[in-house]
Amino acid sequence: MKDVHALPPRPGSLTLDRVGISGVRKPLRIERPGRVVPLSASFTLAVDLPAHRKGSDLSRNAELLAERVDWPDATPVASLEAACSSIARELLGRHPYAERAEVRAEAEYFLPRGVRPGRSSLENFTLLAEGLARREGERIVVRRSIGAEAVGLTACPCAMETARDLLEKEYPALRAPELAQLPVLTHNQRNRTRLRFEVDEEVEVEADRIIEAIEAAQSSPTYAILKRGDEARVVVDAHRNPKFVEDVVRDLLTSLPERFPDLPDGAAAFVGTVSEESIHKYDVLASHTATLGELRAARAP
Amino acid sequence: MKDVHALPPRPGSLTLDRVGISGVRKPLRIERPGRVVPLSASFTLAVDLPAHRKGSDLSRNAELLAERVDWPDATPVASLEAACSSIARELLGRHPYAERAEVRAEAEYFLPRGVRPGRSSLENFTLLAEGLARREGERIVVRRSIGAEAVGLTACPCAMETARDLLEKEYPALRAPELAQLPVLTHNQRNRTRLRFEVDEEVEVEADRIIEAIEAAQSSPTYAILKRGDEARVVVDAHRNPKFVEDVVRDLLTSLPERFPDLPDGAAAFVGTVSEESIHKYDVLASHTATLGELRAARAP
Amino acid sequence: MKDVHALPPRPGSLTLDRVGISGVRKPLRIERPGRVVPLSASFTLAVDLPAHRKGSDLSRNAELLAERVDWPDATPVASLEAACSSIARELLGRHPYAERAEVRAEAEYFLPRGVRPGRSSLENFTLLAEGLARREGERIVVRRSIGAEAVGLTACPCAMETARDLLEKEYPALRAPELAQLPVLTHNQRNRTRLRFEVDEEVEVEADRIIEAIEAAQSSPTYAILKRGDEARVVVDAHRNPKFVEDVVRDLLTSLPERFPDLPDGAAAFVGTVSEESIHKYDVLASHTATLGELRAARAP
Amino acid sequence: MKDVHALPPRPGSLTLDRVGISGVRKPLRIERPGRVVPLSASFTLAVDLPAHRKGSDLSRNAELLAERVDWPDATPVASLEAACSSIARELLGRHPYAERAEVRAEAEYFLPRGVRPGRSSLENFTLLAEGLARREGERIVVRRSIGAEAVGLTACPCAMETARDLLEKEYPALRAPELAQLPVLTHNQRNRTRLRFEVDEEVEVEADRIIEAIEAAQSSPTYAILKRGDEARVVVDAHRNPKFVEDVVRDLLTSLPERFPDLPDGAAAFVGTVSEESIHKYDVLASHTATLGELRAARAP
Repeated sequence: MKDVHALPPRPGSLTLDRVGISGVRKPLRIERPGRVVPLSASFTLAVDLPAHRKGSDLSRNAELLAERVDWPDATPVASLEAACSSIARELLGRHPYAERAEVRAEAEYFLPRGVRPGRSSLENFTLLAEGLARREGERIVVRRSIGAEAVGLTACPCAMETARDLLEKEYPALRAPELAQLPVLTHNQRNRTRLRFEVDEEVEVEADRIIEAIEAAQSSPTYAILKRGDEARVVVDAHRNPKFVEDVVRDLLTSLPERFPDLPDGAAAFVGTVSEESIHKYDVLASHTATLGELRAARAP
Repeated sequence: MKDVHALPPRPGSLTLDRVGISGVRKPLRIERPGRVVPLSASFTLAVDLPAHRKGSDLSRNAELLAERVDWPDATPVASLEAACSSIARELLGRHPYAERAEVRAEAEYFLPRGVRPGRSSLENFTLLAEGLARREGERIVVRRSIGAEAVGLTACPCAMETARDLLEKEYPALRAPELAQLPVLTHNQRNRTRLRFEVDEEVEVEADRIIEAIEAAQSSPTYAILKRGDEARVVVDAHRNPKFVEDVVRDLLTSLPERFPDLPDGAAAFVGTVSEESIHKYDVLASHTATLGELRAARAP
Repeated sequence: MKDVHALPPRPGSLTLDRVGISGVRKPLRIERPGRVVPLSASFTLAVDLPAHRKGSDLSRNAELLAERVDWPDATPVASLEAACSSIARELLGRHPYAERAEVRAEAEYFLPRGVRPGRSSLENFTLLAEGLARREGERIVVRRSIGAEAVGLTACPCAMETARDLLEKEYPALRAPELAQLPVLTHNQRNRTRLRFEVDEEVEVEADRIIEAIEAAQSSPTYAILKRGDEARVVVDAHRNPKFVEDVVRDLLTSLPERFPDLPDGAAAFVGTVSEESIHKYDVLASHTATLGELRAARAP
Repeated sequence: MKDVHALPPRPGSLTLDRVGISGVRKPLRIERPGRVVPLSASFTLAVDLPAHRKGSDLSRNAELLAERVDWPDATPVASLEAACSSIARELLGRHPYAERAEVRAEAEYFLPRGVRPGRSSLENFTLLAEGLARREGERIVVRRSIGAEAVGLTACPCAMETARDLLEKEYPALRAPELAQLPVLTHNQRNRTRLRFEVDEEVEVEADRIIEAIEAAQSSPTYAILKRGDEARVVVDAHRNPKFVEDVVRDLLTSLPERFPDLPDGAAAFVGTVSEESIHKYDVLASHTATLGELRAARAP
């Protein structure tokens, strides 16, 4: 049977940066201390294509993915990013004409959260993982990225100040010194924040700690179960911790040296946040990229 | 050329409720007092299919839509719902084997809004329209529906009460009688509310007034341009008007007899609202359907 | 602490059809013969609200859902629809003021599929489930619905005929009697089809058989792994089995009496299909609803 | 009123790459030869933020956008990319602390298309535009990008070869020399392709010609209105022009030197394509970036 993909393309053809498959849905199991966690992930697998070849053998991508994650004898993988980086490495084995391979995955992930004992339930987060492999002479060098997105709450610090000004005019009693620390009303809303590290293949980062870091940088986490008293507590605490999107990004990045002391200076951290503003029909966003080395230097006195 | 659609299907075939096309994007122009408004709409056009026919001539649907809304000599239509109902009627002319036709459209729509002069800008809303035609003997009877969705803000009345309880414990000065009416903090969020009327073909409802009715039932409209002072005003006002989703639906339905006195008792009103809760990762919803006659009876003392 | 939800609303308030929470993401485990399958589901839980009550206690919905599906001692549920109907029943226990409760869930689901041994991998489908409970005097009566969506392929029968006409003019040799049965080219595309049964609470329907029924009604299933020879086989077979959306709906409904002989005559079957036409930027759809009794009567000679 | 945004943030704060607003929906009018075209666009506007400032004055972004595109006296803009680049430039005026500004917009766009006279109707495309401004000493330098996405059809060249092999075994008459050029069946599907140029501010590129270039690189454009004979013609022609995603990207890039002779060598072209494979539940993608200079060099003999 003729192999159309392997044919030479028209003379003068271009190399291509990326050829692959995307939106491939797969269940997989990842190992966590003391448990195995099932995930439903969406995968993208791509390689580059040299000028002398008409097509990329895409069925190899789908086949490799099935071998690694869904075949009956598939053992659980160490992590989503471990799956991505090992598949990226092996993609270069199956596409000998390729110089670079990338594997990206996104999966819903659940962790128990609760404002108090007896109120705990599973909250949904998103895991983000990548494996990026490239040939360097005879070797294959792999970078991986591991990240997560958490939905939390932000309360606006600016509207809180200006609302206090306005309320103090109408209610002079609010100016009483005993009420100077009273958190007043402001607009608050859903905030989606992502933190992603790009590191060498052998570096491990625990996804649960990424999610904890994000939640700590928002005005408050959000919860599925909030009885009346809990709801008041969450709302008041969030108003004591008002945050612009700028604050979320800065506070999250600034927390990384202490939270991830083992990460090498060359590790890159990408933070992006979006607040779905309650007072506007549009969103507000902020993002920044820095290496751990830069973040450590910024903290040094 | 063989007409496969007109062939008889296999013996014992079923009639079908709906066969049609959906997601057809079209620009059109609607007439408003003193102006012509351009819209980009997404259309669905469908008819039923009798048992004796293999297929529905779907190219007639696309052709009719083009004739009515996008051909160079197309004059502006009176309204999106007028376009839907007249196309639904004509669909029965082009599918003589059909008993029922439906045409649905959804389009983004802009109206000027502002908290004060000089702060006005165009806010985005969604228009919802339908035409539903059916044969009754020799006649074709058409019902139309006209509606809209507006994004606004809701502030939670329950968390406001419980947050006050909690704050009063920490700040006893908050119990001062002069502060009894002080609006305190609560969670607030984006709220999307739809109001849709189903009426006979000749009944007109002005879309702008539907949008005004929705905005009046939320804790506050939202605005693209809010300078610092404006933002405080919007947030404080919204906290003086806290609303559950239940309140949004009830207040909106209850306002209809006064806002739409010309609508006949047989007009049906559908209201649905979704609050994208800032304290949860999930949404809260409420919906209800009632005729104008029922709503008028509910208001009678 | 004041219970704002239980307060009487303004005089003359309306009852409400539905108040609830939606988009609640939860992992759960369902039992299948010989295995336990993990799912990530999105839930909606709602009840009606009487006129004398301001709000619905929505935290009870979230709490109940957590108790049933995500608490550490949660045992696997029999099925997604069993979870929905038992939660709907219990919702009426926790909202004593409500007359009706509905629970809807949607979840990604995987089954092994392959064109031949060694090519099998997990394909993704969607499970659809509902539980609908209502009070009848002292009793609670529950209906459940169980369904699925499968993505497959449809090849157009009409364009195949007209393309043959056109090709025969250019290639008279194609009119050779030996080529009369040769399947010729036509447009083909992704087709998404849903089948859903609404039945009494005690009726069981196996989701895997629903998916098999859908796949059998499309021109062909689709597969993650297709090596060159497989791909040709799938494409040729699909072209030997061309289908309009009308055919998909009719063939699926017509197959139900034989595929589901145990379903009672009162069971309702809902079928909807959408073909993402390769030759248009819009979709083509068809849908129909019938009871098993009606489908059995239609097959009788 | 206190200006919280202008406050110094905590000591040791970071600069931020991007702070802005996104998902801002606006109608605007662009000038085309002999006509004014209304668009509904979604905008993102962002600037960087220095370390010494707590927040970015985001209301300035919304206000500037309103001034330029939606205020009653707003004159039509020359093009979507002209609006983006002029707004990006002015953003630096209104955020004097910022070094870089970006404005991105996406809008639905319609052009008449038809397989023959009398079959023409408006087809929907997507316009993509950006303005990227940065300070260079006293000057502000602006780059703009202008692009579009078109949905068309691709027919697979590989499955066509392998299907022919398979069919020839079953129908030896198909091997007749007169049928050697007969296009045979293969899988075909919706293809979405984007072409975007990044150029200096003064460079003009006509969006309609970008869309024409994309359509010419797919197996065929797609059309809203196709009567039976037209449909056969489109399908047959597409099968005479089968394309991998690799071919779409290469053919499109290769066509650019001839189609856009006025573009400078430094103009960068980004091409990305996705085929929504009819035989798989997942998509296939390819992408590549090259400068016009590189593309011209690749064509030189």
